Amino acid sequence: MEVQAVDYLAEERGKAAFDVEAMKVVWAGSRHSLEVSDRMARLVASDPVFQKDTRTMLGRKELFNNTLRKAAHAWKRINELRLTEEEAEKLRNFVDEPSYVDLHWGMFIPAIKGQGTDEQQNKWLTLAYKMQIIGCYAQTELGHGSNVQGLETTATFDPKSDEFVIHSPTLTSSKWWPGGLGKVSTHAVVYARLITDGQDHGVHGFIVQLRSLDDHSPLPGITVGDIGTKFGNGAYNTMDNGVLQFDHVRIPRDQMLMRLSKVTREGKYLHSDVPRQLVYGTMVYVRQTIVADASIALSRAVCIAVRYSAIRRQFGSQDGGPESQVIDYKTQQNRLFPLLATAYAFRFVGEWLKWLYADVMQRLQASDFSTLSEAHACTAGLKSLTTSITADGIEECRKLCGGHGYLCSSGLPELFAVYVPSCTYEGDNVVLLLQVARFLVKTVSRLGSGKKPLGTTAYMGRVEHLMQCRSDVRKAEDWLNPSAILEAFEARAIRMAVSCAQNIGKASSPEEGFSELSADLVEAAVAHCQLIIVSKFIEKVQGDVDGQGVKEQLQILCNIYALSLLHKHLGDFLSTGCITPNQGALANDQLRALYSQLRPNAIALVDAFNYTDHYLGSVLGRYDGNVYPHLYEAALKDPLNDSVVPEGYDAHIKPVLKQRFRVSRL
Amino acid sequence: MEVQAVDYLAEERGKAAFDVEAMKVVWAGSRHSLEVSDRMARLVASDPVFQKDTRTMLGRKELFNNTLRKAAHAWKRINELRLTEEEAEKLRNFVDEPSYVDLHWGMFIPAIKGQGTDEQQNKWLTLAYKMQIIGCYAQTELGHGSNVQGLETTATFDPKSDEFVIHSPTLTSSKWWPGGLGKVSTHAVVYARLITDGQDHGVHGFIVQLRSLDDHSPLPGITVGDIGTKFGNGAYNTMDNGVLQFDHVRIPRDQMLMRLSKVTREGKYLHSDVPRQLVYGTMVYVRQTIVADASIALSRAVCIAVRYSAIRRQFGSQDGGPESQVIDYKTQQNRLFPLLATAYAFRFVGEWLKWLYADVMQRLQASDFSTLSEAHACTAGLKSLTTSITADGIEECRKLCGGHGYLCSSGLPELFAVYVPSCTYEGDNVVLLLQVARFLVKTVSRLGSGKKPLGTTAYMGRVEHLMQCRSDVRKAEDWLNPSAILEAFEARAIRMAVSCAQNIGKASSPEEGFSELSADLVEAAVAHCQLIIVSKFIEKVQGDVDGQGVKEQLQILCNIYALSLLHKHLGDFLSTGCITPNQGALANDQLRALYSQLRPNAIALVDAFNYTDHYLGSVLGRYDGNVYPHLYEAALKDPLNDSVVPEGYDAHIKPVLKQRFRVSRL
Repeated sequence: MEVQAVDYLAEERGKAAFDVEAMKVVWAGSRHSLEVSDRMARLVASDPVFQKDTRTMLGRKELFNNTLRKAAHAWKRINELRLTEEEAEKLRNFVDEPSYVDLHWGMFIPAIKGQGTDEQQNKWLTLAYKMQIIGCYAQTELGHGSNVQGLETTATFDPKSDEFVIHSPTLTSSKWWPGGLGKVSTHAVVYARLITDGQDHGVHGFIVQLRSLDDHSPLPGITVGDIGTKFGNGAYNTMDNGVLQFDHVRIPRDQMLMRLSKVTREGKYLHSDVPRQLVYGTMVYVRQTIVADASIALSRAVCIAVRYSAIRRQFGSQDGGPESQVIDYKTQQNRLFPLLATAYAFRFVGEWLKWLYADVMQRLQASDFSTLSEAHACTAGLKSLTTSITADGIEECRKLCGGHGYLCSSGLPELFAVYVPSCTYEGDNVVLLLQVARFLVKTVSRLGSGKKPLGTTAYMGRVEHLMQCRSDVRKAEDWLNPSAILEAFEARAIRMAVSCAQNIGKASSPEEGFSELSADLVEAAVAHCQLIIVSKFIEKVQGDVDGQGVKEQLQILCNIYALSLLHKHLGDFLSTGCITPNQGALANDQLRALYSQLRPNAIALVDAFNYTDHYLGSVLGRYDGNVYPHLYEAALKDPLNDSVVPEGYDAHIKPVLKQRFRVSRL
Repeated sequence: MEVQAVDYLAEERGKAAFDVEAMKVVWAGSRHSLEVSDRMARLVASDPVFQKDTRTMLGRKELFNNTLRKAAHAWKRINELRLTEEEAEKLRNFVDEPSYVDLHWGMFIPAIKGQGTDEQQNKWLTLAYKMQIIGCYAQTELGHGSNVQGLETTATFDPKSDEFVIHSPTLTSSKWWPGGLGKVSTHAVVYARLITDGQDHGVHGFIVQLRSLDDHSPLPGITVGDIGTKFGNGAYNTMDNGVLQFDHVRIPRDQMLMRLSKVTREGKYLHSDVPRQLVYGTMVYVRQTIVADASIALSRAVCIAVRYSAIRRQFGSQDGGPESQVIDYKTQQNRLFPLLATAYAFRFVGEWLKWLYADVMQRLQASDFSTLSEAHACTAGLKSLTTSITADGIEECRKLCGGHGYLCSSGLPELFAVYVPSCTYEGDNVVLLLQVARFLVKTVSRLGSGKKPLGTTAYMGRVEHLMQCRSDVRKAEDWLNPSAILEAFEARAIRMAVSCAQNIGKASSPEEGFSELSADLVEAAVAHCQLIIVSKFIEKVQGDVDGQGVKEQLQILCNIYALSLLHKHLGDFLSTGCITPNQGALANDQLRALYSQLRPNAIALVDAFNYTDHYLGSVLGRYDGNVYPHLYEAALKDPLNDSVVPEGYDAHIKPVLKQRFRVSRL
């Protein structure tokens, strides 16, 4: 099948009322960031080793081996090309295949950086940066994920030999899930209960060598393996998530990570004077990257769905002319455009979180812990909200592509499967929302004390106004006013928090009340977090934005984001009396008008993500829109098409067709 | 690892306040149905050929071949054991692996039955029933799914040879998606535009032989293959969904399915006197089975999540005692129990649809078409609603199992991937809801005409009362009154439909208005369909129900179903003024109380589904609750664990660990 070099989306691109190149800079965060991303994406896309179009067809072993090959090749290229750390990270990112490398750079090294003494960092980071050792992060166990304090692995200090004895006392204490552990890592940061002289000091980190650096075989006392197939084709099956058991494994005392607390030669347990709050800094950092990743993942799915919705035609043919593009259907717009707006919203809140992290670290260094609990709650909530919405949003984009979205060649099934664990890891999303809620209830309870709420809870300082204000929206266009939107979201959030706090007050005890009302508390936390995202989007739009028409597009997206949330959570806004049913209906009218404004710019708005066809990995989302010949081509590559008559014909089809059963009733 | 024969859920089972065996009969529909299901499920579970525990680890070819083997073995057993049609169908169902067999029995044979003349049925069904031919259903094309009238394949009558010439004029006209087509089917019912003497008569069905019955090779002019990997591990990758192109393939005239219309020897196109409405009967039948399947799929996921939620403990340990079972957390209950209630709700509405189908067929035979459009709209809506909620519900159950739900050994990833296409096939769910909405708007417009609305729209006859009534709920328990629930749901549904109708009336044309307001119309359709399900559940509870405590449990489930919907769609109820914010809060209070009532019965309520461990296919959902040793055991079976040092070590890991890059900046 010959493929023509035609841009089937050229007409769509011509409709854009804004400067796409300028929007690319806005999306990337800076001209520099765009340039580096663009260069690294093309580098990966043009290298045949990094091809990924048959990934979803491979069996587990073949797939895993292929990932090892890519990881080694990436490391080689990074060194040959003398890439900077920023470039190297982006290159690894565009390789777009989970592997041990992610854990080595993303968890093992940061853990040692955060929890190791200067001496420990000197020793271990030198090896790790050169990949002379490969490390992973062994925290979760078969029986314990969310509740870190309940981990069962023990590290018992033996003063005789000056060693810790790492041990797995039960089956459920097996380390379970750590990425890179199963087959690759030579070392791990292992979390275990520290025991000295019979006393349990809780969970601490230890550097443990797992495999011989000579022949890669597990060291004595170590049982290690892969935990098996995970959700989806390709996806995380490229990763050796592992299981690990210790049978009294001895490590030197200096392999306990001792920056925050240490065990002396005599077996004494001591805290250092480094503030323990530093741990929260790391948490803010990790969650900030997760929010940034959410906007990437969602924007990839949206890019595919928007492009294919402009290519796909169905129904509505008049006089034998072409059928309607499905992107012109209001039902399609009503599902797709809010997700497009959400991708941008998440991008900007992620950008703001980078600032927040820098701010928190600066304060920590100055021993200013005043903003910490607010920053902690805020990042917990944003991690939860953005990952849940992104996971659901990818699946919605898949459905918006009709039947073909179910094919792996659409790229969407793998995108979903590889993304969805982020709803569970680094804090289960519901557990995190309960943490936010706890913080909100506490903030509410202190409102009378004269202490002003900080940061993203500052609006709560205006509690009196927000508890009794009523929206003055009178016509649909009034909803375009940012202050109308902001006040409605603020009023809703604070009223839900206050109502929860009041109801908890009626319970026999606060804990009892908190537990009984936890479903309501989760909803209050969601309302608060949505407000944060809406307000950061509004701030972005109100700031300096370069490029012809760019600000206007962001304004439209911002309004779509806010008003679609308002419609989705109408029950909250009405039950708290923030708006009237009629004002809700006006918001909906305005939303429809905004869809019409967005429509001609939709393709250009996803072009602004600047994704290569390689990175998107989707026949449906091709830049040139030339979908159908490539769907056909992708199908032909399936192993089942190696032969026209399938291998099982003689054994399992012919007998069915030719057999005669005398005994059958049928 | 030794596995003990202990029932870890025995204590939970002891808490049940009702007769589980009686509930099994209620769930199965009858004692007979329970007995047959139970017997067939055990037959499959005990046969080693039907094992499926390593299915998700197989590569595509191996997987497909294994499915062929199972299908052949099932056919052999069905004949050897002289199973009845009912037994055979259940056996195939418990094999639980999509294959060509499903399409042969579920689409090919019914299509010939429905559209073939007596003569055609005699000839082709005789062969098909004995599987001397294997057939599939070739309707959708690369460029056309939802819009059947837009299909491009042509069947041109050639009066010279008394044949039809089947042809694929474009790439997009390739048949695409039909299950069983790619590698197995010898025949297909092909849908193509009938052309006689230059005139296009629209889409008709034709029986076309695709492959030689001697050696299975495609016949001349036929290009056929597999369309490639689909979403998920195992899942639909066991099926050879196919692509098919015709290059002027000739078939005899008598292979056009001629029950409803025919082409004479002279090339004249004639309609028969068989009413075309019969087609709708088939549609009602197919959708009824889809709704029944929804309750099965959702109940499987719920069964796994409920059992594991009772086994899994996390947080809340006091004084070193065991941690809390996660099923005791209100946030868990708030997500899980409504899904448990929904599974039952779908079961009962599915049962009612069986009755509806029988009723429709009886009327059709008597040429009574009066209920047809209502039945058509109702089944379209229920198909849409139940499949969407089930797909989302399975994924929610997976998340409710924490990290381990992401492992294929949990059974949930495959359950999701294999289920989710039902949101798209047999009518895209949003397209179907728009059909329902169109019917509702029409019904509203006729309310003044004196013609009484029928069946599930009968409540609209009370429009005057429902447009102005207000709920008289004053305390939480008032929401236990079925008539309070019913009236709120009826008022909400009719008010949304009337509001849509009024807004359409304001548009420049009805079509314009319908298109512009289609997102609102979808919501109105959902409200109507939820009312149907709620009302059928209430009818079930109010009817005869045998067994100690069974009725009481159904009552609790029914109330949870209705009140959780009310909470989820609170915006609808408030904006239409059906209830007040305070009444909404009372419903929520009552919901929490109902969760507490359900809690001790949760395990028994999923035991009542009577699923074998084989059918569930989930380590987390094991009947005996002995989860952890089996998770470990399942992991060991992964191909990656064939060797401790992975195959790629020498080629791709060692070089990384040992290489020294002189040029690196890092």
